[in-house]
Amino acid sequence: MSVTQKLAKNCAEMTWDDLPFAVVHQTKRCIIDWLGVGLAARGHKTSQILRSHLRKMGGNPQASILGSNDLVSVEQAALLNGTMSHVHDFDDTHLDTVIHPSSPIIPAIAAMSQWREVDGKQSILAVAAGMEAALRIGIAVCPAHYDRGWHITGTAGVFGAAVGSSIIDGLPAEQITAAIGTAATQSSGLREFFGTMCKPYLPGHAASNGVRAALLAGGGFTSSEQALEGRRGWAAVLSPKSELERIGHKWGEAFEILRVAFKPYPSGVVTHPIIDAVLQARERADEVESIHLEVHPLVLELTGKEEPRTGLEGKFSIYHCAAAALLRGQVGIDEFTDEAVSDPDVIRLRERVTAEVCDELAPEEAIAHVQCRDTSRTIHIRHARGSVNNPLTDEELEDKFVNLVTPQKGEKTAKRLLEIGWSLEEHDFSRLLTAAAEEV
Amino acid sequence: MSVTQKLAKNCAEMTWDDLPFAVVHQTKRCIIDWLGVGLAARGHKTSQILRSHLRKMGGNPQASILGSNDLVSVEQAALLNGTMSHVHDFDDTHLDTVIHPSSPIIPAIAAMSQWREVDGKQSILAVAAGMEAALRIGIAVCPAHYDRGWHITGTAGVFGAAVGSSIIDGLPAEQITAAIGTAATQSSGLREFFGTMCKPYLPGHAASNGVRAALLAGGGFTSSEQALEGRRGWAAVLSPKSELERIGHKWGEAFEILRVAFKPYPSGVVTHPIIDAVLQARERADEVESIHLEVHPLVLELTGKEEPRTGLEGKFSIYHCAAAALLRGQVGIDEFTDEAVSDPDVIRLRERVTAEVCDELAPEEAIAHVQCRDTSRTIHIRHARGSVNNPLTDEELEDKFVNLVTPQKGEKTAKRLLEIGWSLEEHDFSRLLTAAAEEV
Repeated sequence: MSVTQKLAKNCAEMTWDDLPFAVVHQTKRCIIDWLGVGLAARGHKTSQILRSHLRKMGGNPQASILGSNDLVSVEQAALLNGTMSHVHDFDDTHLDTVIHPSSPIIPAIAAMSQWREVDGKQSILAVAAGMEAALRIGIAVCPAHYDRGWHITGTAGVFGAAVGSSIIDGLPAEQITAAIGTAATQSSGLREFFGTMCKPYLPGHAASNGVRAALLAGGGFTSSEQALEGRRGWAAVLSPKSELERIGHKWGEAFEILRVAFKPYPSGVVTHPIIDAVLQARERADEVESIHLEVHPLVLELTGKEEPRTGLEGKFSIYHCAAAALLRGQVGIDEFTDEAVSDPDVIRLRERVTAEVCDELAPEEAIAHVQCRDTSRTIHIRHARGSVNNPLTDEELEDKFVNLVTPQKGEKTAKRLLEIGWSLEEHDFSRLLTAAAEEV
Repeated sequence: MSVTQKLAKNCAEMTWDDLPFAVVHQTKRCIIDWLGVGLAARGHKTSQILRSHLRKMGGNPQASILGSNDLVSVEQAALLNGTMSHVHDFDDTHLDTVIHPSSPIIPAIAAMSQWREVDGKQSILAVAAGMEAALRIGIAVCPAHYDRGWHITGTAGVFGAAVGSSIIDGLPAEQITAAIGTAATQSSGLREFFGTMCKPYLPGHAASNGVRAALLAGGGFTSSEQALEGRRGWAAVLSPKSELERIGHKWGEAFEILRVAFKPYPSGVVTHPIIDAVLQARERADEVESIHLEVHPLVLELTGKEEPRTGLEGKFSIYHCAAAALLRGQVGIDEFTDEAVSDPDVIRLRERVTAEVCDELAPEEAIAHVQCRDTSRTIHIRHARGSVNNPLTDEELEDKFVNLVTPQKGEKTAKRLLEIGWSLEEHDFSRLLTAAAEEV
């Protein structure tokens, strides 16, 4: 049996009873966090352009647009909701692979669940299995695949969407194999587009392609049985190195979803220890003469933009992140608008921030040297808030959710959604998505 | 100005008057040939599964499904028609890059043209510019990109669809730049899937993604301005080597579309000199004891399947191609059905075919040693029929078209379509697509 077939078989055979409590709980954390960050992107220009495009294309009313009573086709709901989930760069992260797993995977399963009217348990199982598939495929090619320039959230995420959608439809293993293959030939996405609308588009594209892969496979579409490991298969072509045996390693015992981290700030995870450090400094902005940062090598590569021009680019600038944290004492969505990035006070502070790479630091670690006129302080963050060793508690996750959803839909809706989300196994996705459209 | 911006500018500034007569004529050859091979795939299982999927998804009635009065959205028409065009592996080929350019590009432009009601000149211009963009991008990364395992018809084709669709909408250069970027992050497709339904799916996927890239860019979507040449841009990530200056080389003077070749047989171009040779042998099948082939190195790599099980796999088996040519005296769509491939007489002959690689031969060249009981013949084909040095004449192209379309729509429709196609600059795509739905 090939690696691809074995993965398909593992996914097809996974049942609700195989999921430990911790996995079910973490899956619900992912779903809740996904819903919050997605809803917060309703008014964003990226979402509006895409939504207007979908309106032009038309489609059967099958699944909800997040936060709306409008129904579009399952493919379109996956596309738009997947894009919305990543617009603010506030969605969850599997730190070992840098995959943001919920954005490409959950929108596919949410749309399919609503259309097929499956219960909450089936949906949670589909998310858990889809996550395992995507994250393990990512692990098998990391870091070489990402280093080559692939935006792994899309390239690996499409497999999670395909597997999860297949599970909603109860496809047998051989059809899941075909779905994985049909996902592989659609797998795409480049890091070049970080800081543009093409970045959040990608998880939406992956979610939508995953839905289609599963539906075509269910309809009898054929594909390679060696999609992942073939001589010209996904791993060989998209990664200079791979260890495909890691995909099946301890399947059913170890769950990668437990290593998914949630973001306290809406920017790349590597900026988080820096923001933590500056927020801890608690100096008055006008007294600070300079901030010198020591950071992990990836930080400057990923988020080294010195002169961000837009809110989106601000997320890829540790200079902006540090300046905004110092000036405003918080780093939320409002700190990454175009206005916030071009605020002269922020720009003045930004110019006082310098950074150097320190090979000994972990990605979740940073050191900030804050120099004032007469004093100086050094703050060393070992484990950024939200990282696997310092995870957000359920309560912090709820606070983040309520803060994101209240401006959109009111606090009552936010709390109602939390209730449904935490007990999703007794409800279903339709109920969650319908409640998310209400404004109370 | 970046490579990507320069390409966008070149495409935006191209006008009808810039097109030499030969380019206009060749563009019409591409359109006619595309229409014929696409129509011939109406009843194929691949087309049916995809069409049934689109029916489930629904969409606004904007553009025709080939050969039908059914209208679907422009994205969907591009997807389905793009897939149909490649189902029989009978579509055109740019031999220098092995791109099949019409399948990912023309369906996008046909659908957009019909929806936006532009005239035939605008559509021909869009096809010509889209072809130049895709083929030149392909040239810039060939052969390294293809050798790595990429199915270049999809990976490069998406740019042609995006550029062509942009031209239909008259987008300015900066929006074409964004369309090229949005195409780049969707660029996908692996050679691993040759011989499965995922192969013809890919040009459809590229066509559809290209349409969407143009429509999103026209709506204000943002992307990188270095999509092609950026450090993590398309060329750097998808190809071990590239010469991006070739994209703009002699733009407006040399036209790559003039190097597009049309297939006399519905299988990979590298099988064509072999089929030519066996057809020329004109031996009685039952007298042949063995056929030994000398072929270009790519032949066995691409089409070396010794025991094809399906019609699709038969296209990737020179053993089947040679056997079918010998037994049936012709190689058309009927020689690549599942039945033809499992015909015991064909299998018996197939087992008498051997092949060896000869480094000195060109891809369009082959030598066949045909051994009968008492006699032996050696046939050396230097330029396969349909190759650039031995192109199909307009008359041969018409014959191919009529042979493909008559079983679908009757000879009168076939001839009517040829009339419209050859004078497309005085008509428009709607007229061609509407006439293709009629059965006379």
